[in-house]
Amino acid sequence: MTVTATETAIDALEARIDIPAVTDALLGTWAGVRREAREMIKDPAFWRIEGQPIAEHRQRALEQTHLLVQHGASARANPVEYGGGDNQGGNLAGFEELVVADPSLQIKSGVQWGLFGSAILQLGTKPHHDEWLRDAAEMRLPGAFAMTETGHGSDVQSIATTATYDPDAQEFVIDTPFRGAWKDYLGNAGQHATAATVFAQLITNGVNYGVHCFFVPIRDESGEFLPGVGGEDDGPKGGLNGVDNGRLHFDGVRVPRANLLNRYGDVAADGTYSSPIASPGRRFFTMLGALVQGRVSLDGAATWGSALAMTIAVTYGNQRRQFDNGSGETYLLDYGRHQRRLMPRLATVYAQAFAHDELLQKFDAVFSGAADTDDNRQDLETLAAALKPLSTWNALDIVQEAREACGGAGFLAENRLTGLRSDLDVYVTFEGDNNVLLQLVGKRLLADYAKQFSGPPADVAKAVAGQTAGRIYHAAGLRRLGQAFTDLGSTARSVELGLRAEQQHDLLAGRVEQMIADVAAALRPASKLPPAEGAALFNQHQNDLLAAARAHGELLQWEAFTDAIERIDDADTRTVLTWLRDLFGLGLIEEHLEWHLIAGRLSTQRAAAVSSYIDRLCARLRNHAQDLVDAFAYEPEHVRAPIASGAERERQEEAARHYADLAASGRAPKKEPKPKK
Amino acid sequence: MTVTATETAIDALEARIDIPAVTDALLGTWAGVRREAREMIKDPAFWRIEGQPIAEHRQRALEQTHLLVQHGASARANPVEYGGGDNQGGNLAGFEELVVADPSLQIKSGVQWGLFGSAILQLGTKPHHDEWLRDAAEMRLPGAFAMTETGHGSDVQSIATTATYDPDAQEFVIDTPFRGAWKDYLGNAGQHATAATVFAQLITNGVNYGVHCFFVPIRDESGEFLPGVGGEDDGPKGGLNGVDNGRLHFDGVRVPRANLLNRYGDVAADGTYSSPIASPGRRFFTMLGALVQGRVSLDGAATWGSALAMTIAVTYGNQRRQFDNGSGETYLLDYGRHQRRLMPRLATVYAQAFAHDELLQKFDAVFSGAADTDDNRQDLETLAAALKPLSTWNALDIVQEAREACGGAGFLAENRLTGLRSDLDVYVTFEGDNNVLLQLVGKRLLADYAKQFSGPPADVAKAVAGQTAGRIYHAAGLRRLGQAFTDLGSTARSVELGLRAEQQHDLLAGRVEQMIADVAAALRPASKLPPAEGAALFNQHQNDLLAAARAHGELLQWEAFTDAIERIDDADTRTVLTWLRDLFGLGLIEEHLEWHLIAGRLSTQRAAAVSSYIDRLCARLRNHAQDLVDAFAYEPEHVRAPIASGAERERQEEAARHYADLAASGRAPKKEPKPKK
Repeated sequence: MTVTATETAIDALEARIDIPAVTDALLGTWAGVRREAREMIKDPAFWRIEGQPIAEHRQRALEQTHLLVQHGASARANPVEYGGGDNQGGNLAGFEELVVADPSLQIKSGVQWGLFGSAILQLGTKPHHDEWLRDAAEMRLPGAFAMTETGHGSDVQSIATTATYDPDAQEFVIDTPFRGAWKDYLGNAGQHATAATVFAQLITNGVNYGVHCFFVPIRDESGEFLPGVGGEDDGPKGGLNGVDNGRLHFDGVRVPRANLLNRYGDVAADGTYSSPIASPGRRFFTMLGALVQGRVSLDGAATWGSALAMTIAVTYGNQRRQFDNGSGETYLLDYGRHQRRLMPRLATVYAQAFAHDELLQKFDAVFSGAADTDDNRQDLETLAAALKPLSTWNALDIVQEAREACGGAGFLAENRLTGLRSDLDVYVTFEGDNNVLLQLVGKRLLADYAKQFSGPPADVAKAVAGQTAGRIYHAAGLRRLGQAFTDLGSTARSVELGLRAEQQHDLLAGRVEQMIADVAAALRPASKLPPAEGAALFNQHQNDLLAAARAHGELLQWEAFTDAIERIDDADTRTVLTWLRDLFGLGLIEEHLEWHLIAGRLSTQRAAAVSSYIDRLCARLRNHAQDLVDAFAYEPEHVRAPIASGAERERQEEAARHYADLAASGRAPKKEPKPKK
Repeated sequence: MTVTATETAIDALEARIDIPAVTDALLGTWAGVRREAREMIKDPAFWRIEGQPIAEHRQRALEQTHLLVQHGASARANPVEYGGGDNQGGNLAGFEELVVADPSLQIKSGVQWGLFGSAILQLGTKPHHDEWLRDAAEMRLPGAFAMTETGHGSDVQSIATTATYDPDAQEFVIDTPFRGAWKDYLGNAGQHATAATVFAQLITNGVNYGVHCFFVPIRDESGEFLPGVGGEDDGPKGGLNGVDNGRLHFDGVRVPRANLLNRYGDVAADGTYSSPIASPGRRFFTMLGALVQGRVSLDGAATWGSALAMTIAVTYGNQRRQFDNGSGETYLLDYGRHQRRLMPRLATVYAQAFAHDELLQKFDAVFSGAADTDDNRQDLETLAAALKPLSTWNALDIVQEAREACGGAGFLAENRLTGLRSDLDVYVTFEGDNNVLLQLVGKRLLADYAKQFSGPPADVAKAVAGQTAGRIYHAAGLRRLGQAFTDLGSTARSVELGLRAEQQHDLLAGRVEQMIADVAAALRPASKLPPAEGAALFNQHQNDLLAAARAHGELLQWEAFTDAIERIDDADTRTVLTWLRDLFGLGLIEEHLEWHLIAGRLSTQRAAAVSSYIDRLCARLRNHAQDLVDAFAYEPEHVRAPIASGAERERQEEAARHYADLAASGRAPKKEPKPKK
């Protein structure tokens, strides 16, 4: 075990974390791939150039994707026979790390391999793999993922593009019926894509079989649109300007029958439709679910981007001094308010990193085939839908607070924070709008909750009698509480006797359970109402349902944090991380303190103590802040922000020397005498 | 009175606002100047070009400042004898409106006239005015305002640049002693400024008389730095890239004695220092206070930028449909969650607009000389320090929520929201970091609170006995409660009997009073402690003090909103605005519901009702949302966002026609038959 150096006598008395051990824990299951990716992106060729004009930035991002191919970093998920590594979790981990090089590269890669390539792999079958997979992996076939339409973002089921089968020619005819049906916001579509995986309503023999995906060539070798294909550039965006987003539309574009990616639905030569999934609804959600990796990887990228921001802000706050406190100027991080701004957010990044690794494991288990069941797929989708909104919203909050905590210096592009903020902005609405995703989670929680009342009467009675009723939806779906969160041994190390780990858990879990029960009770009349009135009732409680879904995701993060601490061997490290976990847990409780008070879960006395616990935890963790961000293990080539380079400390020392020399010289000006009264 | 058209039977039954009357109220005291400015910036020459490369954007902003001169919009604040209009409040109102043209133009103008020109006007005397005021006003003399240093942002008193008087030459010698003393983040300094108002420690006869301001030429006519002056460009920033920020440093740069802007401190030929203000501390704060207009105008610009964002998001949410609800696709604004996202923020913009007009009136009263007392200056500074943090932080929140509420379309630069967000970002840390400003307010509140205990014992006893003790600081400083907030006649129109206007006020004001009393009690031992321990005690309560300052600012906004409603004649308009004010007030109460519960100000039953009141107010205001944003009175040349242009509605109608025609033709594909069980 490596013990970090202690800097002061006070420090020496206190536990310090074992930084390398914490790094291992944070990097998680695919630490090796993460380290490989970080090593690769030390090459300045991968770095975002701040202020670069859009056209050049796009060209640079394109070239970077070719560099990824050269480094063998583009096809880890593909089957070995197509040059891949058959490594699902590691593949996403590697891509996530690109966010600190340039989020545009991360997203352009995500479009090419996580969406376009993945659609071929997941929705296509062997002939498609044989024909396109290697070319896509090696960037000989840059592609767009044409799902979203101007008129339909989140509601994919209602897209209007049609693919009508013509049995005489054995071709599908792709058509855009009106302006709102143009495909929109598609990465790579603005300039570089030569093909697209196009989602359209499959119509054959006069019947619409719902949304399917088709491989459609769109540009010739000179970059001109093929006949019948049109489009336009989406123009400048709020960030990610290295990605060439654009619009596409189709007018009678014909593709061979074989271009239907036919894993979940096929059309025979005579136009007969067939599918291994009889239910149109389940078929649709299975196809969309095959593309969940986008959401999964955004959760990781948002978390690691947040870690970079915390690294910059904490390092600067630990060097920068401002205002004389009587004993020389004070470090920013010594201010109570500054601690309150940064420390809880640092705790959040930790929680997210641990929760994300669990999500990746789940993803890997399903997509590697090791545990590919319907239930697991649904759990995975719900887990991704719960975590991605939290981490992407948190990223915007964390990066912004970091930028403000660095003052004017934080606003300079060279210090990375504003660029990161701009690039991460769209993460909250793409790959599933966060509010829409939370609604999915909420509906799943409601469904799980309802299940307990739908079994044999004896089971229902038993569940209710056992007071475990409220937990059934929890156990049924997202996390096996009994399996993972068992050992509350960390309790004894909680800093405050008032709210130990199990009490934090009770409050957080109790809130989710009660909120779902309340919404369920409020919605019970809906089934007996006409559809419009039922929808109106649901709408009245939409805000509450989303709040419950959010609380559920936060609970999962808290549990993942707690489980991760149990896996740490070093006792001192566990102590400090338990403080950090307590800060995370108490922060969640403080955020909804009014709920716990109204629900009678906390007395006013105990509730009043929560904020001062948090203040004390912030102060206690202050001396660990640098260690905790150092454990993210970013090197200078990843951080790059001049304010986090030590330059600030050098400037301060130079200033101190100047004043010391001046005083010693006897030439220092005197202070203005006090005015005579 | 103009009554707006009613669109549905339900609308017809309900009150509608008198839009022009509300516009008048929002535009406030200087509505005329605002309208003039808005008319001027209909010219596309003033519009920000999204995605424009930095060099071109800077050039464009420079040219726009010349256009302002041509329109006579640059010197409204100057004395008439220098070609000005002697209109203090109107001058700021006019500049604030530029934010919807391009925030870079607003800030570049602010640097030139609100800081550089204003330093000459406010800190200089007649010879300075004669020599430079017209040239600065007419952009023949572009200047930088050189106060902030790399090493000292908020703590101006500690800047390290020196201006040492040389009596032999009758010159000041300006020096930058070390790297941390470089002037930094200065608008116009990167490229365009030919002179700067430089803040430096004035040293004469071996004594440092503290920070003073000097007029220093920095560039020759060809744009080269003059001898002894150096600097560099700050490079790309997170926004406002039309402003050329830069750094400056000085090595033995000599300026004539007359270049000291000597209104508050002068040096005679022989080096003798004199000042009309004996106390060095008061002199310093008086000089800084003379430059308060930057903060005042940011409050207005942030508010009107937020109004633009709400206009875009509400208009789009009122046209865009998504997901079929059983009765056709639902407008976004019909969703409960969407209402919860937008309506409270709309209420906040209203509160801010009304509060800002009061701030402008106060500013005008002081700077026009009509009510220029020490007390009024201090009140003005405290009021600006209370409101600017709230409105600038709110702007980031409001613009971001608006962008997310517009989904992917919101991320396209053409729809304005991301650019606005990036440009407004730095408003929260410049012209006084928001946290530092709130601390100023907090300290003022503490001082006012303490005063009640420092008077003659009889007064103290009377105050305590009268239960008005807690209000003394309130009456002493920021707002004469008895003068303005008298008539609670709007109460009867409050939508909920549960929390009428006076109850909202009691809760909001009671919270400020109690929080300040609590912090004061906690800090009482500080005066008896050694300085470092006293500072540590203060630090422990810093977060609470800032929260109290924030609550104080929110109360002022609430009061301003309430007073503004009283000035509206039309009863229906008052009704709707009272709902909106209730939404604002209840939103503030909900945000800190835990405080009111813990303090025993609200029972759990009443507290639990607050959120459902808010839900109902949101739903009730939904049909007024368009009217309420239309009252901001932005025209297409101000809005410019394609998604708020009606194009979305046209696309929806085209899609609906397509499906109707298809159905009528009998050629519509059939739905997939349900699978056989």
